[in-house]
Amino acid sequence: MTRSLTTVESRLRKQKPDSGQIPFGRTFTDHMFVMDYEESKGWHEPRIVPYEPLTLDPAAMIFHYGQTVFEGLKAYRTDDGRVLLFRPEKNFERLNLSSERLSIPPIDEEEVMDYLKKLIDLERDWVPEFEGTSLYIRPFIIATEPSLAVAPSKMYKFMIILSPVGPYFSGGIRPVTINVEEEFTRAVKGGTGMAKTAGNYSSGYQAQEKASKEGNADVLWLDGVEKRYIEEVGSMNIFFKIDGEIVTPALSGSILRGITRTSILELLKEWGWTVNERRISIEELYQYYEEGKLEEAFGAGTAAVISPVGEFNWLGKKMVVNNHEIGPVAQKLYDTVTGIQRGRKEDDYGWTVEI
Amino acid sequence: MTRSLTTVESRLRKQKPDSGQIPFGRTFTDHMFVMDYEESKGWHEPRIVPYEPLTLDPAAMIFHYGQTVFEGLKAYRTDDGRVLLFRPEKNFERLNLSSERLSIPPIDEEEVMDYLKKLIDLERDWVPEFEGTSLYIRPFIIATEPSLAVAPSKMYKFMIILSPVGPYFSGGIRPVTINVEEEFTRAVKGGTGMAKTAGNYSSGYQAQEKASKEGNADVLWLDGVEKRYIEEVGSMNIFFKIDGEIVTPALSGSILRGITRTSILELLKEWGWTVNERRISIEELYQYYEEGKLEEAFGAGTAAVISPVGEFNWLGKKMVVNNHEIGPVAQKLYDTVTGIQRGRKEDDYGWTVEI
Ligand SMILES: Cc1ncc(COP(=O)(O)O)c(C=O)c1O
Ligand SMILES: Cc1ncc(COP(=O)(O)O)c(C=O)c1O
Repeated sequence: MTRSLTTVESRLRKQKPDSGQIPFGRTFTDHMFVMDYEESKGWHEPRIVPYEPLTLDPAAMIFHYGQTVFEGLKAYRTDDGRVLLFRPEKNFERLNLSSERLSIPPIDEEEVMDYLKKLIDLERDWVPEFEGTSLYIRPFIIATEPSLAVAPSKMYKFMIILSPVGPYFSGGIRPVTINVEEEFTRAVKGGTGMAKTAGNYSSGYQAQEKASKEGNADVLWLDGVEKRYIEEVGSMNIFFKIDGEIVTPALSGSILRGITRTSILELLKEWGWTVNERRISIEELYQYYEEGKLEEAFGAGTAAVISPVGEFNWLGKKMVVNNHEIGPVAQKLYDTVTGIQRGRKEDDYGWTVEI
Repeated sequence: MTRSLTTVESRLRKQKPDSGQIPFGRTFTDHMFVMDYEESKGWHEPRIVPYEPLTLDPAAMIFHYGQTVFEGLKAYRTDDGRVLLFRPEKNFERLNLSSERLSIPPIDEEEVMDYLKKLIDLERDWVPEFEGTSLYIRPFIIATEPSLAVAPSKMYKFMIILSPVGPYFSGGIRPVTINVEEEFTRAVKGGTGMAKTAGNYSSGYQAQEKASKEGNADVLWLDGVEKRYIEEVGSMNIFFKIDGEIVTPALSGSILRGITRTSILELLKEWGWTVNERRISIEELYQYYEEGKLEEAFGAGTAAVISPVGEFNWLGKKMVVNNHEIGPVAQKLYDTVTGIQRGRKEDDYGWTVEI
């Protein structure tokens, strides 16, 4: 069911950035989608309006108790000028899972998909063409009721904003160095780690800054209970090729169910790899490394698709992976997924949605 | 150092609520304090302005990555009409500790104290008189830079809003029933549990709703690692009187350093009680209960000051404490702290600050 969508077109059209060098998440398109929730009306008043500031009471609950969820996906430009989304239904499905954990009322996934398509259609010219670029899509829900009571909000705002983004790695994929974090914890069983909610991200800044000062690109999180089991990287799930098999941490309740993760698991299985979704500790990984069995390591997420790891730093010890080079599995996954996303490879899986 | 504070007085004065029945955190006074942060300027432009909506870019980081901290304290009206704050310097000290964990730049505690005093002075008439009422003070900092990069914001807003609040328990203090939460986790070592940051609160809503459906007033959180050690209640630290001694969970890194907690620890020591700040597991508590040694239990926090616990529900087992009655230690602490706060008891400790 789609309620009548109002569209107010912007009288101003902003200058589109130069495709080659767009900083991540700082430029926004001309329009955005907004919809409100009130207990008595449910989600209502879906509208596409000019991108504009939000006006909220200083007591709006989002500012005080962090009741909010978000998603991140991309629209890609094909060589023949079409615009494709990659498994967008999975994002709205996950948004509702996140909302459930945060006591936020669910959205109608199909209805919202329809609004997203209309928004992208209107902003079609904002989808950049340059290799590696895309239009980043950020749906999010915030609690807006003005109240300091520590309880679920009775009012919410759902919004979608769009931002053209440059290539994650300029000049193709490049292995990075990652610090294994021993002190700080991202998430724990029974917490919000499996939800895409704001608090999970700023809680990682201290670890991120520490890692970055020591020359690392990102953080590898360990589980919050035993501080042994590998969970995920900042905004990516993590994969290893160990002794000819693929290993990735099982969904434990504290890591995000990445859509890239799901997709590459499907590809790897189809390609005949033995794939182990299981617990793997950092000590175990180090042992494989010492035995020369750690053949590849890579992160998987919407931002970079595949981000090979060239080195892990763990308590002063280094694990250099595949001589700091991109491994064949990472390369093939990257080529396949980006190929499908950009319409260069046959989409045998029905993963893309054309706008 | 106090920079020149600008004050823009509101032309409208709102109707003040009837002191006897004010719902928590829904009514705000005529003015608020605002100050901004930019990397190049530091904290700047301190100002008292009419209470009014905030205007923020939809990409403002507070909406996406939860980089925010807050505080909660109260201004009390004495019988002779003066206005007192209770240990406000501790709140700004804790705000800075929270900010450190969230990678937010610190504020100058003395400077901000001065602004708070000026704001309260201007809003003096909003401090209600009725027994148990007060003016709730909510300082908070939010990340305002419009950017979707997962990194500390370069822009922040510090605000103080004020809300007259009614008595926590109408008709004096009253023992409550609390559910011991086994499934959900509030915080874990290495996480943000010791900081007063938004995400810690909404992550508790699921547990809160579950507890409340089963007739409980609140949740008792266990540690995230072993799910055994007692941490705290929703917005209160927890105390027990066991076999003639006082026991409260030690500051573990995952519980909040409550200012009420600190204050009553000081009082209890002065009164000659043996006070144990230590780890205590829920099994241990249950054993004391069975042995008839669990003599009192009470929460301690700014909201209720002291909130006696009449019953704990733990995995279907009930622990009834002191026959659902207020114990003498809880009562004496309540009378002493509220007495000092309202200027009825001598403030031997220099805890109150008159405005
Ligand atoms: C914490 C976290 N893990 C993993 C991912 C990867 O998920 P996806 O493949 O859906 O982008 C993301 C990014 O979205 C994330 O934020
Ligand atoms: C999680 C939590 N624990 C404990 C407390 C009690 O702290 P205080 O006594 O400073 O109000 C609060 C409330 O402020 C809180 O939010």
